[in-house]
Amino acid sequence: MNTTAAPSKNATALSPSVLTEVLDGSWAAARRRGREMAADPRAHLPAGGSLEELRAATTAGVGLVAESGLSRLPLPEAMGGRNSHGEYVAGFEELVAASPSLQIKAGVQFGLFAGAIQHLGNEEQHARWLDDAVSGRLLGCFAMTEIGHGSDVAELGTTATYEPDTGEFVVHTPFRAATKEYIGNAARDGRAAVVFAQLVTNGVNHGVHALVVPIRTEDGAPLPGVSFEDDGKKGGLLGVDNGRIAFDRVRVPRENLLTRYGAVAADGTYSSPIDSPGRRFFTMLGTLVQGRVSLDGAAVVGQKLALDIAVRYADQRRQFASASSLEETRLLDYQRHQRRLMPRLAEAYAHAIAHETLLQSFERVFSGAEDTDETRQVLETQAAGFKALSTWAALDTVQECREACGGAGFMAENRLVGLHADLDVYATFEGDNTVLLQLVGKRLLQDYAEEFRDIDFGGAARFIGAQAAEHTLHRTGLANVGRAIGDLVTAPVKEKRIRSGKVQEALLADRVETMVSGLAQALRPAAKMSPAAGAELFNRHQNELVEAAIAYVELLKWRSLNEAMHRLEDAGHAPAEAKALRRIRDLHGLTLLSRHMAWHLMYGRLPMARARLIEETVDRLCTKLAADAVELVAAFGYGPQQRRAPIAEDAERERQAEAREYYRRARARADWPVDEKELRRRAKKRG
Amino acid sequence: MNTTAAPSKNATALSPSVLTEVLDGSWAAARRRGREMAADPRAHLPAGGSLEELRAATTAGVGLVAESGLSRLPLPEAMGGRNSHGEYVAGFEELVAASPSLQIKAGVQFGLFAGAIQHLGNEEQHARWLDDAVSGRLLGCFAMTEIGHGSDVAELGTTATYEPDTGEFVVHTPFRAATKEYIGNAARDGRAAVVFAQLVTNGVNHGVHALVVPIRTEDGAPLPGVSFEDDGKKGGLLGVDNGRIAFDRVRVPRENLLTRYGAVAADGTYSSPIDSPGRRFFTMLGTLVQGRVSLDGAAVVGQKLALDIAVRYADQRRQFASASSLEETRLLDYQRHQRRLMPRLAEAYAHAIAHETLLQSFERVFSGAEDTDETRQVLETQAAGFKALSTWAALDTVQECREACGGAGFMAENRLVGLHADLDVYATFEGDNTVLLQLVGKRLLQDYAEEFRDIDFGGAARFIGAQAAEHTLHRTGLANVGRAIGDLVTAPVKEKRIRSGKVQEALLADRVETMVSGLAQALRPAAKMSPAAGAELFNRHQNELVEAAIAYVELLKWRSLNEAMHRLEDAGHAPAEAKALRRIRDLHGLTLLSRHMAWHLMYGRLPMARARLIEETVDRLCTKLAADAVELVAAFGYGPQQRRAPIAEDAERERQAEAREYYRRARARADWPVDEKELRRRAKKRG
Repeated sequence: MNTTAAPSKNATALSPSVLTEVLDGSWAAARRRGREMAADPRAHLPAGGSLEELRAATTAGVGLVAESGLSRLPLPEAMGGRNSHGEYVAGFEELVAASPSLQIKAGVQFGLFAGAIQHLGNEEQHARWLDDAVSGRLLGCFAMTEIGHGSDVAELGTTATYEPDTGEFVVHTPFRAATKEYIGNAARDGRAAVVFAQLVTNGVNHGVHALVVPIRTEDGAPLPGVSFEDDGKKGGLLGVDNGRIAFDRVRVPRENLLTRYGAVAADGTYSSPIDSPGRRFFTMLGTLVQGRVSLDGAAVVGQKLALDIAVRYADQRRQFASASSLEETRLLDYQRHQRRLMPRLAEAYAHAIAHETLLQSFERVFSGAEDTDETRQVLETQAAGFKALSTWAALDTVQECREACGGAGFMAENRLVGLHADLDVYATFEGDNTVLLQLVGKRLLQDYAEEFRDIDFGGAARFIGAQAAEHTLHRTGLANVGRAIGDLVTAPVKEKRIRSGKVQEALLADRVETMVSGLAQALRPAAKMSPAAGAELFNRHQNELVEAAIAYVELLKWRSLNEAMHRLEDAGHAPAEAKALRRIRDLHGLTLLSRHMAWHLMYGRLPMARARLIEETVDRLCTKLAADAVELVAAFGYGPQQRRAPIAEDAERERQAEAREYYRRARARADWPVDEKELRRRAKKRG
Repeated sequence: MNTTAAPSKNATALSPSVLTEVLDGSWAAARRRGREMAADPRAHLPAGGSLEELRAATTAGVGLVAESGLSRLPLPEAMGGRNSHGEYVAGFEELVAASPSLQIKAGVQFGLFAGAIQHLGNEEQHARWLDDAVSGRLLGCFAMTEIGHGSDVAELGTTATYEPDTGEFVVHTPFRAATKEYIGNAARDGRAAVVFAQLVTNGVNHGVHALVVPIRTEDGAPLPGVSFEDDGKKGGLLGVDNGRIAFDRVRVPRENLLTRYGAVAADGTYSSPIDSPGRRFFTMLGTLVQGRVSLDGAAVVGQKLALDIAVRYADQRRQFASASSLEETRLLDYQRHQRRLMPRLAEAYAHAIAHETLLQSFERVFSGAEDTDETRQVLETQAAGFKALSTWAALDTVQECREACGGAGFMAENRLVGLHADLDVYATFEGDNTVLLQLVGKRLLQDYAEEFRDIDFGGAARFIGAQAAEHTLHRTGLANVGRAIGDLVTAPVKEKRIRSGKVQEALLADRVETMVSGLAQALRPAAKMSPAAGAELFNRHQNELVEAAIAYVELLKWRSLNEAMHRLEDAGHAPAEAKALRRIRDLHGLTLLSRHMAWHLMYGRLPMARARLIEETVDRLCTKLAADAVELVAAFGYGPQQRRAPIAEDAERERQAEAREYYRRARARADWPVDEKELRRRAKKRG
C-alpha cells in the first residue's frame, strides 16, 4: 500500500492507520486488495483514449478482476466460492479508484449478469452459466431498463411468450419504447443477456420474469432477431459500452427461464413458490439489491478520492500574501476553504462508516445467516436510502473539491472532473434517487401507522405502495425516538452542550418523527377517498415525503458514525484518533442541524440561543479538523497510484520552493528592482 | 427563429413572445442574431470529434463570429465600430447555445485579446493590431494567469525589463510557477499574446503591465524563446486550445507595451496618468470587466437551455400509472419534479433580467456615457457578484435538469452533461467565485463604515482591501434598507401578505444590513491590531463576509426581477404574462427566504406563523407555474436548432403514442393475455 501521509504541522500526531481501521471495517483485507488492484496500471483507462480504446481497456480490466478471484467470492462453496458477499462488495467498490468505468462494467458482468443467474436461477442453470459468467468468459448484459420504463420495472413492455409446441419462449420487443436501453455490455461485448420480460403462457401474463438470451455469436455477430444500437458518447463512464437491444421474436429454450420465482412446465403450466404476483415481483427485485449496496460504497470511494486530492492540494497551495510575512497563505488556512472541505470530509466519514453497517446487513441476509422478510426489508430500505444520499453527496463533494482546486481542478489529469462525470449517473441508475427516497418515505409511513399499508396512492406511490403492502411490517424504530427530548435541549447553553451526542441524536430523531407523524395526519383522509383524489392528496405531500426520508437516512448515518466513535473511545487505545472522530461526528451532526435549522426552530425544540451557537461551533470544528486534515485523508488508504492526480503530490510544493528561492536570491542582489512605494519612501528620506 | 411552443393544456394562454421581450431587454435584436448564429451548423462542434477536430471546428466558429461583424461592434466609430458594448456582449453570450467552447474561444480572441489592445493600447497600437484582432486574422492569447497565481494577479512572476540600449523589453519567465497557464489559444492557434508582467525599467518595478508579444510565426512555429505545453484534455471546453506559455528572455520593441496606464520613454523613463501604483493596477484590471459581465450572461444562457430541455421532456415523459387511468403520470405533474424545476426556472428569469441591468451599467461606462469612478465601481461590484451567483446557479440548474431527465439526461446527445462539463470552469475563471464574493463583501463593509477603507486585512482580503481603498466610496445603499421593516411583517398572516413584494424586499434587505453591521462590529477591533492579528480576526469572519456578499447579490437580482415585473404590470397590455411574472418573482423571493429561513427566524423579523406559510406557498406557486412551464421556457427564444437535444423534441411523445396504440389494439384482441389478478377474479366469479 502507498499510504504516504504528507508532512504536517499539527501537534496531535494522529495515526492515519487507526482511522483506516475504523473506515475499512470488517472486510479491511478485501478493501486493501481492491485498492491494490486499483493501483495496477493495467486496470486504468488510457489518458486521451478514443471511445473504442477506453472500452477495450475497461474490458481488459474486467478480466483482471475475474483473474483476481474477487468475482468468485459470492458463489456457494460447492461452486468454488465462499458465500461471501460483504467481502466481495467491499473489494469490488474500491475499483472506483481504478476508474468508475471499470467498477460499473465489472458490476454489470459480475453483480448484475452473474448475480441474476445466481439469485434467480436453479442449480442446473448455475452449472450451465455461472462459471463462465464469474470468470468473464461469457460477457453478459442485464437487460431490464427500457426506453419507456426506467424505475417502473413492473410496466416493462418486452414479452416472453411460451409456445408448448416448440418448448420455446418467444422474446419480443413489441414497440420502440420497449427497447432495452442504457444496457452495459450491449454495444460491444455482451454475448448473452438476462432479459426481463412479461412472461406469458397459456394466455396469462404472469408479470416480469428473467430469461437468459444469447445475443451475439462468439465472434460478436448479432444473432438473428437481435438488433443493437450504440449509446455512443455519454456524460461519463466512457469505458462502458452501453447500448440498446431490441428483439424481433427471438426464440430461446424453455430452460433459459430463470426459475427461482416462477417456472413453466413443458405444457405451459406456470408455477411459483410465491403466490401473490406483487410479492413475487418485489421479492425477485429484492435479490438484486446488491447493485444499490455497491453503488453506496462506490460513491463513498469517490468522495474519499476527491477529498484526498483537494485536501492535499489545499495543504500545499498558497495564494495571496498574508499580512505578517512574504509567505502566502495556505488555502487550507482560509476559513471559507475550511468550511468548504471539512464538513464534506466529516460527511465522507459518516457515509463510509454507515456503508459498513449496510454491508453487514447485506452479508447477513445474502449469506443466509439472517435471511428473513424483516431483515430483507431493512436491507432494501437502507440500501435505497443510503445509495440516494451518498451518490448525491459524492457529486456535491467532487464538485466542491474541483472548484476548491481552481483551474488545476479542471484539468483532466487531476481526475476531479472525470470523477464527477462518471459518478453523475449514479444518482439516477439502479433506481432514481428521488424514487428510492419515496420508497423509504412510504416505509416510514407504514411503520408509523398500519392503515398506510394498503392504501393505493397512485403514481410513483402506487409502485411503492404495492411493494410495501406485500411485505410484513418492518419497524423503523420511530416510536422510540420522541423520548424526553425536552430534557436534553433545555439545559444551559454551552458549546459542550451543543456538541452533546445525545442532543444531536434527539434533534435529528425528533425531526424524523415529527415529519412522519405530520405526514401521516395529512394523508390519513386518503384511505376514504377515491383513488384519484387519494393520489392527488398524496402528490401534494410528495416533497414532504422525500424530505422525511432524507431526514431518516441522515439519522441512520449519523448513528453509525456515533457508534463507531463510541467504539473507538471505549477501546481506549487511541485517544487522539477518538478525539478527532468525536470532532468529525460533531461537525457532521451540527452540519445536519444547521442545514435544517429553520425546521428545528419552527417545529423542533431548539431554542434560539442555542441555535445561534451552532454556526460558531461549526467554524471552530472546521479549524480544528483542518489542522489534522492531511492525516484524516491519509486514513482513506490511498497512495499516489490510487489518486493519480499530480496536484495532490508534491509538484506544487516544489514549484513554490523554487519561486521562493528565486526571490530570496534576487532580493539579495544589488540590482533587484525596488517598487514604486519603496522608491517614494527613499525619496522622502532623502528630501 | 424556431420558437415553437409545444401544445399545452393550460388555460391562461401565455404568450411567450411577451416574456421574450422582457428577457431579451435592450439588445433584443443582437440576441436574436446571436441565437441565429448559434443555430448555424458551421458553429457547432462535431459529435464525437477528436480533440483536434473539436478545436478546428471552434476556430472555424470564431471566424464565423468575426464575419458576422459582431466583434467589431465595440470598436470606436473611427475604426468601423459602433462603440456599442452592451449590444456586442448580448449577442456574443448567446453563442453558448452553439457551444460554450465557441463562446469562450471567441471571448478570448475578441473580448480579452482584442479588448486588452483596445482598452490598454494607444491609437497607434489600435491601428497596428486591432483590425487584425477583431477580424480573427491575428489570433491571440490573453496571458495573465500563471501556475502560481490565478486570482492574485498583482503577484505575477513574469518580468518585462526595459533595456534602453536596444529599446526593447525582455520578457522572461523566471521560475516554473511563473509559467502562463490555462491560456486559451495557446496550445494551437495563438500567434501573439497580450502578456501581463512586472514592468521593470531603470531599476524600478512599476507593477503589472501588459505587452503585445508575438509567440508563433504565421505558420504556427514557436518563435525563439517561447515554449508551449498543451493543457490537453480538460473537464470541458474541449474546443478551446488551452496551454502553457513560458518566455526565455524574449525581446519585443518598446512600442509593444500597451501604454494607456503606463509608458516607457526611449531612455527608460516611466510615466503614467495614474500616480498611485495600486490605483493604476486596479484601474487597468477594471477595463477587463467585460469578461465577467459576459460570463454572467453566458451562465444565464446555460441555465435557460438546460431548463428548456428538462421542462419539455418533463412535459412529455410519463412514468408510473396514475390511480385514475391507464395513462401514466407526466413528470411535470409530480410535486417533487415541480419543486426541482420551477424554483430554478424562476431563478433563471431573475438572473436573466438582472443581467440586463448589468449590461446597461456596462454600456453606460464603456460607451463613455457615464464613465466615472463611481459608475465603474458599481459595475465592477455588480459584475463580480452577479458572475459568482449566476455561474453557480447554472451548474446547479444544469445538474438538476440532467438528473430530472434520468438516463436520457446522461446521453451526450441531449447536451446536459456537456453543458455542465463546459460551464464548470466558469465558477473559477475570470476570478474565482469565492474571491469575487469577498471583493463584494469588502465593498459592503466599506460602504457601511468609512474606517474599513484603509485597513489591511491580510490574505485575500489584502488584495481586496488594496483594491477598494484606492477607490472613492461607492454607496451600496445599505443605509436605506432598514426602514420600518417591522410594520411590513407584523400584519395578519395570509398567503397574500407573504407574497407581498414589499415584505420580500424588506426581509432580503434587512438580512444584508444586519449581516454587514454585525460583521462591521466584529471586525472593528482590527483597525487597532497588528496586521497579523487583524488578518486572523478577518479570517475568522471570512465565511460570514462571503455569505453577506451572497445575500447582497441576491437582493440586487431580486430587485431587478421585481422592477421588470412592475414595468410589465404598469404597461397594462399583457395581464396574463404580468401575472406569470408576478408568480415568478414570488417564487424566487420565497425560495430565497426559505433558503435562509433559519437566519430570518434567528436574526430577522419573520414571525414563526408566517414562516410556516412559506413552504406551502412555494408548493402552490410551483404547481401554478408548472401549468405554464412550456410557455415560460418557450420565452427563452430557443428552437430545435439551438436546443439540439432529441429528448426535448417530440421523440418521446411519439414513442408513447406508439406504445398506447399497441396496447389499445392488443387489448381489443381475443388472445390478449390476462394477468393473474384478472384470472383470479374470473375464477372467483365462476366458483
